[in-house]
Amino acid sequence: MSVFELDERLARDSDLITVLGLCQLRLLKDSRWPWLMLVPQRAGMSEVFELTPLDQALLTFETNSVAAALKTVTGATKINVGALGNIVRQLHVHVVARFEGDPNWPGPIWGFGKPEPYDDGSRQIFINKLAEALSS
Amino acid sequence: MSVFELDERLARDSDLITVLGLCQLRLLKDSRWPWLMLVPQRAGMSEVFELTPLDQALLTFETNSVAAALKTVTGATKINVGALGNIVRQLHVHVVARFEGDPNWPGPIWGFGKPEPYDDGSRQIFINKLAEALSS
Repeated sequence: MSVFELDERLARDSDLITVLGLCQLRLLKDSRWPWLMLVPQRAGMSEVFELTPLDQALLTFETNSVAAALKTVTGATKINVGALGNIVRQLHVHVVARFEGDPNWPGPIWGFGKPEPYDDGSRQIFINKLAEALSS
Repeated sequence: MSVFELDERLARDSDLITVLGLCQLRLLKDSRWPWLMLVPQRAGMSEVFELTPLDQALLTFETNSVAAALKTVTGATKINVGALGNIVRQLHVHVVARFEGDPNWPGPIWGFGKPEPYDDGSRQIFINKLAEALSS
């Protein structure tokens, strides 16, 4: 049985916020959208349906908890949830807060333009708010 | 309590394949990718986390069953699953079979180019294969 190791590109493009029951919750290094990612800590998974039924239920619960918290924190017009994996095959789920008029609205965020880094202060404020919403 | 009615644009852009426990399973009228959509038959929903916990579990089960069947039928490189809803707010989940070199690979399908209709014969063959994979 192999051990979970985070994909190098996912590691490079995002920062760990916390570990939930199944998933790492990570923040993308791109301030254009409030953009979170859940990575189930299971080795060798690339499709959601490859997870055990229990892990599928956990992933759903964690994804929806994070999506609801992100909506609360940001007041987003719409939350976008996606598991694509065309570039990085390790299973990961994007949870993104979208606003009318944001970059590429109403199109998708993936593959659009170049990341714009956070400054440390605004990143930490966002993470603190999100942690509070997740624990309430 | 309001009654579920399918959004007009979703109705126009896709054909009903079958009704699962919770969702309508629909085929997009676009032959560029094997592209399915699940629409939970619940009124007034726009985010997955607005569904009851039971409906969230049902949606997960139905989405993953459909994704696995689509992988079996198509032999896709990767299944893309997404709930965006930036244009149509009624909750709907896309399940798309992707192949290296397909239109906009490895980028997302949403908002890319113009739909290319199926001919009736190839659409029916695909639907029959999918129905068989779903029932096995």
